[in-house]
Amino acid sequence: MNSNERILLIDCPDEKGLIYKISGVLYDHKLNIVSNQEYVDPVSDHFFMRSAFEGTEAAEQVLSDLEEILPEQADIRLASNGKRSVVVLATKEPHCLGDLLLRNAYDEFPATISAVISNHDYLEPLVRSFDIPFHHISHEHLEREEHEEKILNALAPYNPAYLVLAKYMRVFTPLFVKRFPNRMINIHHSFLPAFVGASPYRQAFDRGVKIIGATAHFVTDDLDEGQIIAQDVIPVNHSYTASDMANAGRDVEKIVLSKALKLVLEEKVFIYQNRTVVFE
Amino acid sequence: MNSNERILLIDCPDEKGLIYKISGVLYDHKLNIVSNQEYVDPVSDHFFMRSAFEGTEAAEQVLSDLEEILPEQADIRLASNGKRSVVVLATKEPHCLGDLLLRNAYDEFPATISAVISNHDYLEPLVRSFDIPFHHISHEHLEREEHEEKILNALAPYNPAYLVLAKYMRVFTPLFVKRFPNRMINIHHSFLPAFVGASPYRQAFDRGVKIIGATAHFVTDDLDEGQIIAQDVIPVNHSYTASDMANAGRDVEKIVLSKALKLVLEEKVFIYQNRTVVFE
Amino acid sequence: MNSNERILLIDCPDEKGLIYKISGVLYDHKLNIVSNQEYVDPVSDHFFMRSAFEGTEAAEQVLSDLEEILPEQADIRLASNGKRSVVVLATKEPHCLGDLLLRNAYDEFPATISAVISNHDYLEPLVRSFDIPFHHISHEHLEREEHEEKILNALAPYNPAYLVLAKYMRVFTPLFVKRFPNRMINIHHSFLPAFVGASPYRQAFDRGVKIIGATAHFVTDDLDEGQIIAQDVIPVNHSYTASDMANAGRDVEKIVLSKALKLVLEEKVFIYQNRTVVFE
Amino acid sequence: MNSNERILLIDCPDEKGLIYKISGVLYDHKLNIVSNQEYVDPVSDHFFMRSAFEGTEAAEQVLSDLEEILPEQADIRLASNGKRSVVVLATKEPHCLGDLLLRNAYDEFPATISAVISNHDYLEPLVRSFDIPFHHISHEHLEREEHEEKILNALAPYNPAYLVLAKYMRVFTPLFVKRFPNRMINIHHSFLPAFVGASPYRQAFDRGVKIIGATAHFVTDDLDEGQIIAQDVIPVNHSYTASDMANAGRDVEKIVLSKALKLVLEEKVFIYQNRTVVFE
Repeated sequence: MNSNERILLIDCPDEKGLIYKISGVLYDHKLNIVSNQEYVDPVSDHFFMRSAFEGTEAAEQVLSDLEEILPEQADIRLASNGKRSVVVLATKEPHCLGDLLLRNAYDEFPATISAVISNHDYLEPLVRSFDIPFHHISHEHLEREEHEEKILNALAPYNPAYLVLAKYMRVFTPLFVKRFPNRMINIHHSFLPAFVGASPYRQAFDRGVKIIGATAHFVTDDLDEGQIIAQDVIPVNHSYTASDMANAGRDVEKIVLSKALKLVLEEKVFIYQNRTVVFE
Repeated sequence: MNSNERILLIDCPDEKGLIYKISGVLYDHKLNIVSNQEYVDPVSDHFFMRSAFEGTEAAEQVLSDLEEILPEQADIRLASNGKRSVVVLATKEPHCLGDLLLRNAYDEFPATISAVISNHDYLEPLVRSFDIPFHHISHEHLEREEHEEKILNALAPYNPAYLVLAKYMRVFTPLFVKRFPNRMINIHHSFLPAFVGASPYRQAFDRGVKIIGATAHFVTDDLDEGQIIAQDVIPVNHSYTASDMANAGRDVEKIVLSKALKLVLEEKVFIYQNRTVVFE
Repeated sequence: MNSNERILLIDCPDEKGLIYKISGVLYDHKLNIVSNQEYVDPVSDHFFMRSAFEGTEAAEQVLSDLEEILPEQADIRLASNGKRSVVVLATKEPHCLGDLLLRNAYDEFPATISAVISNHDYLEPLVRSFDIPFHHISHEHLEREEHEEKILNALAPYNPAYLVLAKYMRVFTPLFVKRFPNRMINIHHSFLPAFVGASPYRQAFDRGVKIIGATAHFVTDDLDEGQIIAQDVIPVNHSYTASDMANAGRDVEKIVLSKALKLVLEEKVFIYQNRTVVFE
Repeated sequence: MNSNERILLIDCPDEKGLIYKISGVLYDHKLNIVSNQEYVDPVSDHFFMRSAFEGTEAAEQVLSDLEEILPEQADIRLASNGKRSVVVLATKEPHCLGDLLLRNAYDEFPATISAVISNHDYLEPLVRSFDIPFHHISHEHLEREEHEEKILNALAPYNPAYLVLAKYMRVFTPLFVKRFPNRMINIHHSFLPAFVGASPYRQAFDRGVKIIGATAHFVTDDLDEGQIIAQDVIPVNHSYTASDMANAGRDVEKIVLSKALKLVLEEKVFIYQNRTVVFE
């Protein structure tokens, strides 16, 4: 997305003429559509559209013109083109976090990592070496709610657009999740819905599977049941112990998480019921 | 594509308002857009659009209305929704041909295989067992032009929309190729541009590669240089002889050819200069 | 496996010197080892070895010499080099069955398909066109045990080494399964353990996954819990309905089933507890 | 490889009884074979064997016993189990180097990165943040031989087992290459042999391919012609510019390079003529 580009995201019940009407508003404002993607879900008859356009026109007028011509239930968003803030939560594993920090340091990450929060201090040197603030918030001797309260306090000043759980090994309460609706992204180390819950590589080993994988998904109240953004797998064989699987799986985890974040941060992902519509 | 669905394909130099104008024509004719895909090539500023719509309106009127509003150089096509005829050419290998015949027999192929032509008679029993006409046109003792003349004569009654080269191991003359512009599809048994020409698996073995693949492409005058439609690969290792690679590669070849044909026959492929724009 | 080649398969608790002792027996009999693979499971300390060797020596003497030097619990097999018989069971879907019939017809299948049995007559013309006996054994108005009894009677004359369930959509009773221990191979249309049971593509659609797959496994008493032989996946996206997934998944199903059968029939698969050791 | 484990690597012309004789030497020395892999190249009749064994026996005696029983041309190596030193060369791209530094920092790299050398200073802060020595050796105003002389001087104190070219964008002279026979590993940003030479992503874009990839290989005098260790690919489509391909390709490059290094450093790779035998 170059600096003069904006992203318009619309979803609403489908009806005849939507593309004509929407492109008409953009045309009237003399905006040039750079790329355009639409999708109509055939099951629910729901319409999704993503338009990238160039132009200096005041966004407010475009939005109000669109509201006028679109169905009342329409969800209309106009994404700003600045890099937004994300905060990363991690526990002790460096591979996903390190990969994000590297991309962030070399401008290959479509957002700005404002801070890293961890319930351990193990990753502090790594984070500090990239000059990113690190908050060690131990969960020991704390009720879950107390711990989350501390995290919320640490988060507040950064006002993050998204929370990224880069192998953060604790489950949040529904109350915490509710604070970041559709704004928390997790990486689960299996090709969901296989091996939900703890120790997926151990489960994979026990089942004798020939592929392992990783899943990036939004966090909802139901553990490992959030909307899937991206998944990938790699082959394994009988010679892989559970620990070998974990080692091999790390590369998939970091690539899938990074890919999913890129899609979300470039405004290519709609959440619709229990799935995502992804305009790649 | 259901029976009441039509596909509109447009490509032309990009200009502001194209989507608005095109969708306006469809809206005026009360046609319902089922799916819509656009792409603007950032290098050449060329616009591509594929619209699937429902409606009973006379196609001619839509086309003439579109011609009026589009740039003069625009290429506009309206695909009919009937199954078109294809003729398959093969030599001696059964895997690609057999796979197509199976799909054709069980309505999993978005066209009708009208006939099979081969320069050998080896595959005749297979083709006949599927009740498809088989033409054995040997190339022995014939000049290339004579052989092609015979093939053209055999093809004529079927009036095929596309010729499919399912491991047809002979090279056509430019004169023959010119008769089927953008209408001949070949499967090459390597991930082009690696290993052009003869014996790609032997070449792959000699180079010691760790992946092999297949490429479906349009046929042009330049051997193995036509526009690529689809490619895929599989891993191999040091234990594969050239012959093992050929065996393993067959599955990739047949899947890639079938995938490419599906894309072309469902009108999802634009040819633009030396590449394809594929709306998957 | 060329005609003069034999396969020796040994598995037993590991102990020092096993390879030395086994290769010594082969050396004493002047047999030339063509390829050799060993694996020791680090969890259970169990030893697996597959040796392909050339030689005309009487197999009985080799086996009795090996029995003498190996631990009492050793499982020792010497595979003959002739093509064995398999019987395929199917219901109404042609893709896996058709793929196997094609390979069988062109000697690309490391066994001989002796017959096909189906609970419907839909696939009869396909099977007959390949000159393979077809048995239509309807399950209607029959108790499960009665139906299986009829299948067993039809199977008996073929004395198959393996039963292949090529999209056979019925579950066998434990009694039937017990008749073919480690000799029934099934293709399940999901990447197990995701989506066990009925309608996996529907389940996949409902969960909004971004990959779908297929699993070839041995059949045990526990539905979809048998030892996995091979798995593969393909990417899907939001635009795939459950039916689109089923269409796309067919190619994976047939390739995975065929790959697993090749591994089993070439004697490259050990079953050990709830997993397989596969020497690829 | 745990601390008490050693790796024996043998390659020689094949002859009857090799495995028996070799395993006999290990058995006589009371060494326990943990894993064993052999391969006989059917074209050249050349034998390769890799044995991991446990035991405290003096290595010299094992080696001399093996020399006695093996053909004269045999290449026998006994790998020590300590982490060896590697030096990484890079230019300006951080992704491969950063990935290696991260793995090195968290003990996920089967060697020790002793230093990084670059012809630019751009990556110095990254390297220093990981507390690894960085040598900026500019090539400006220098003859190639002079520049290489300076690199050799900088390398000398580290006595590296391998040189890793992590997107080092200069070509070495044959004289330099000769100093590190079979000890220089490069990552090329295409699936070789497609797109040798400069700007492979530009070439890939121009050819309109649907897959891009990366190749890790040993460096020989012939540019991009060294023995291939590992390769992988990812799908692309018409919407990828050459620059998008470069961005997407980075993930493949870093994963393939890291995978190849792991294989080489764990002594799983034989170089044989123009190919590699890799025991995965």
